[in-house]
Amino acid sequence: MAITMPKKFGFLMIFNLTLTEIVLSGNVLIWPTDGSHWLNIKIILEELTQRNHSVTVLASTATLFINSSLDSPINFEEIPVSFTKNDIDSLIEHMVMLWTNHRPTPLTLWTFYKELGKLLDTFFQINIQICDGVLNNPKLMSRLQEGSFDVLVADPVTICGDLVALKLGIPFMYTLRFSPASTVERHCGKIPAPASYVPAALSELTDRMTFGERVKNSISYPLQDYIFQSYWGEWNVYYSKVLGRPTTLCETMGKAEIWLLRTYWDFEFPRPYLPNFEFVGGLHCKPAKPLPKEIEEFVQSSGEHGIVVFSLGSMVRNLTEEKANLIASGLAQIPQKVLWRYQGKKPDTLAANTRIYDWIPQNDLLGHPKTKAFITHGGTNGIYESIYHGVPMVGVPMFADQHDNIAHMKAKGAAVEVNMHTMTSAELRDALKTVIYEPSYKENAMRLSRIHHDQPVKPLDRAVFWIEFVMRHKGAKHLRPAAHNLTWFQYHSLDVIGFLLACMATVIFLVTKCCLFSCRKFGRTGKKKKRE
Amino acid sequence: MAITMPKKFGFLMIFNLTLTEIVLSGNVLIWPTDGSHWLNIKIILEELTQRNHSVTVLASTATLFINSSLDSPINFEEIPVSFTKNDIDSLIEHMVMLWTNHRPTPLTLWTFYKELGKLLDTFFQINIQICDGVLNNPKLMSRLQEGSFDVLVADPVTICGDLVALKLGIPFMYTLRFSPASTVERHCGKIPAPASYVPAALSELTDRMTFGERVKNSISYPLQDYIFQSYWGEWNVYYSKVLGRPTTLCETMGKAEIWLLRTYWDFEFPRPYLPNFEFVGGLHCKPAKPLPKEIEEFVQSSGEHGIVVFSLGSMVRNLTEEKANLIASGLAQIPQKVLWRYQGKKPDTLAANTRIYDWIPQNDLLGHPKTKAFITHGGTNGIYESIYHGVPMVGVPMFADQHDNIAHMKAKGAAVEVNMHTMTSAELRDALKTVIYEPSYKENAMRLSRIHHDQPVKPLDRAVFWIEFVMRHKGAKHLRPAAHNLTWFQYHSLDVIGFLLACMATVIFLVTKCCLFSCRKFGRTGKKKKRE
Repeated sequence: MAITMPKKFGFLMIFNLTLTEIVLSGNVLIWPTDGSHWLNIKIILEELTQRNHSVTVLASTATLFINSSLDSPINFEEIPVSFTKNDIDSLIEHMVMLWTNHRPTPLTLWTFYKELGKLLDTFFQINIQICDGVLNNPKLMSRLQEGSFDVLVADPVTICGDLVALKLGIPFMYTLRFSPASTVERHCGKIPAPASYVPAALSELTDRMTFGERVKNSISYPLQDYIFQSYWGEWNVYYSKVLGRPTTLCETMGKAEIWLLRTYWDFEFPRPYLPNFEFVGGLHCKPAKPLPKEIEEFVQSSGEHGIVVFSLGSMVRNLTEEKANLIASGLAQIPQKVLWRYQGKKPDTLAANTRIYDWIPQNDLLGHPKTKAFITHGGTNGIYESIYHGVPMVGVPMFADQHDNIAHMKAKGAAVEVNMHTMTSAELRDALKTVIYEPSYKENAMRLSRIHHDQPVKPLDRAVFWIEFVMRHKGAKHLRPAAHNLTWFQYHSLDVIGFLLACMATVIFLVTKCCLFSCRKFGRTGKKKKRE
Repeated sequence: MAITMPKKFGFLMIFNLTLTEIVLSGNVLIWPTDGSHWLNIKIILEELTQRNHSVTVLASTATLFINSSLDSPINFEEIPVSFTKNDIDSLIEHMVMLWTNHRPTPLTLWTFYKELGKLLDTFFQINIQICDGVLNNPKLMSRLQEGSFDVLVADPVTICGDLVALKLGIPFMYTLRFSPASTVERHCGKIPAPASYVPAALSELTDRMTFGERVKNSISYPLQDYIFQSYWGEWNVYYSKVLGRPTTLCETMGKAEIWLLRTYWDFEFPRPYLPNFEFVGGLHCKPAKPLPKEIEEFVQSSGEHGIVVFSLGSMVRNLTEEKANLIASGLAQIPQKVLWRYQGKKPDTLAANTRIYDWIPQNDLLGHPKTKAFITHGGTNGIYESIYHGVPMVGVPMFADQHDNIAHMKAKGAAVEVNMHTMTSAELRDALKTVIYEPSYKENAMRLSRIHHDQPVKPLDRAVFWIEFVMRHKGAKHLRPAAHNLTWFQYHSLDVIGFLLACMATVIFLVTKCCLFSCRKFGRTGKKKKRE
């Protein structure tokens, strides 16, 4: 790690630190996950390079979004794999279609889980190939060894980053959005989650639950734990083999120095956490830049009615013709102008107020003063841009965490949900009118925006601070709870409870015995006396 | 609240905030606790006034340290009470003597707790007088109403600050060091504390416990809860009377917007907490200023051996003659020069290397490059100054949280403990030699210092940030967990567990019944068939 003086940390307390400790120019190794995850971590990498760090991304030869064509000094190390970009593309399309076309009835639920199981298994095979592509690749490993990295930052949705770090003998940390029912955060990160007010991720519940919802929530946790054990359990064998000693995926994940979670209290419900968890949601958000001329003219043509921004994210490109027509006819019924990011066939019902674009400058549009509402699939990145700019939302969730994300925004009064499967044109129109004309939605969106902006340090600066902290101190052990050293029954004090119950039982037994003995003795003495 | 632009929050994100929201000149009402607590909060008040806030301190006419003679623009509102400074002084002296002279044997334990109970009762009577002095004082209350305060910051060790805030209709927040076994933080603030690795405050345990220690810890929690219920329970009646509805002290405390805790992860063991808890330990620490000429000359005369700083804090002024002689003769046996803050009679055994002072510039001495060790009673303020400057400690704890504080520093390898009751001169000398000449103590003290200095924002700035946040947003409800809306059995999901057990029992009962019925039926049919 080269010695330079800090550039941006004007607020960093540097008394008593020797020069080697305030070093801020280091080598960072990145273990990313593709898709929207990459879009988020890319922002951190760009900031790291701006702060004079050398950044190297480890990615397979078959990535969709991760590429070296960026106009930035980020290095890329390719992991050779036998699958191709097309395989990944069709796999993701398969997953999106499975989720979006699934109507939650008991009859289809079985097929859904069976199909999902198959998909997860394919992902597992792909992930194993990525792991082997590094760990069983002496040339690549020796190049990485020579790279003298100071820290590895991993998105744990793609497994093995931690293993690579351990093999290289460097500290590692995570950047994570969530795991279902926070299984990973709870079991491997040790954060507590009382089922009475911490809704399980993906449950679509809030922190204020009825009795029935609390029952559902309490069942969600062990159910997800079971699924985690059965799906992720296969990794325990792999991890033990690589590390040459019996271990588990979870035990290894527990060695992470810091967990950067991609949410904050504008989005999350307040819940317990640990000092090595840092909530950096919305780190990618930026003030709006001026719009391209054509778009700006269209936006300005909306007059006092303003505009609606509409995107279903980077993963969904097409809809059925029927669905697209239904949506377009709904949009036709509002006085606002609509900018719709859509790559499918132009719907027949498309009205003059709606324009279709292959791509839109989403953040710049959401930050435009004329923007009245955002129709979103509910991805975390988009929701955070909406929070950042204080724009109320109409949520059309489709898969993964999107339903849960929209449930959060609904609970905070900043969104209305429309069901993708059952919606009519009128429902979409009414939802838009509600968030645009009922003032509470704008007020709540602005309240979340204020919360987001009013933090002691910006999320991106905090994320980078903790990466640099781990580099400066070769870890952050002082933030890691001792819970990691306990077995599950010790953690829950089951041995102590058992011991105390045994003590109580012994005392009760002895006291009862003594009483009985005394009663008998005094009884006999009494009888004797009577006889006498 | 007047409208001015922010002065110091260069790092504050101000996009999307309207002018009224970035207001930083407000009216702050302070509900302090006397003694070392005041010395800590005073630093926050000075910072608040420097940032153009108007600060008013509500304090009784009989305070020891809290006074208006400060050369600062802090306002004071006097609460009329019938007790005097001397009463408080002798009460504290009584408490210190009781604690310091108590040798923990089963025989004396009973007397100790009986005496302590009496003392707590006297404190209760004094506290009630303070409460009545405000709440039953229409003139004072109407002056406070006219003061248009934006927030009340209370040290909850002196009870009633929250009540005053509720009566004035303003948000309130706490600044707190600890409560025994974190009873207040757990029950009223709702932070979880797994007994398996979170040592109960005052237990002198660490986060790495043997089975026996975990048993002790698991008992400590309910024991302290019981003491809290019985001692603080009297307040429930008072609070219900003042608020005119049935309530409890704990329910009212739970309405605090933010809890500023006066520790950090350099001192604490990593443990779960909630987003409305902020750890601002060491906010009073500052870089060392040059020493007065006479002291600097004495320090320089120590040569390469350096100096030892020795203070038993602001509460202990005298020791028995025997103890003072024993200490002086221990200090005589080291090559370092010693600066001892002591107001008692000069001990006969005092050697040339030791000088006694009525008062010492403790922080400036601890920050002096010649300082090798700090002999301390283990008060949090002093420990934090030692951490700040990276000075290893010899702890001579006497009362309150001091034993526990020293246990923390011992666990982190930065201190050696000497027993005040049983120590010999040789033990004190050996303890000093250990922390001075065994390099690990200095290394660990420096490690803690680095952790303390390497935070994204300084503790004092964080404390002030959250006070200003509560002023800007009239609270911090987005950080308050929904756990506050649950009863204790709902919080622990006991109703859900009961319901699920009942469901299981019903299913088992029905299945068993069905099986029995089928067996009987098939049994009969079988018998019939056999007969046929």
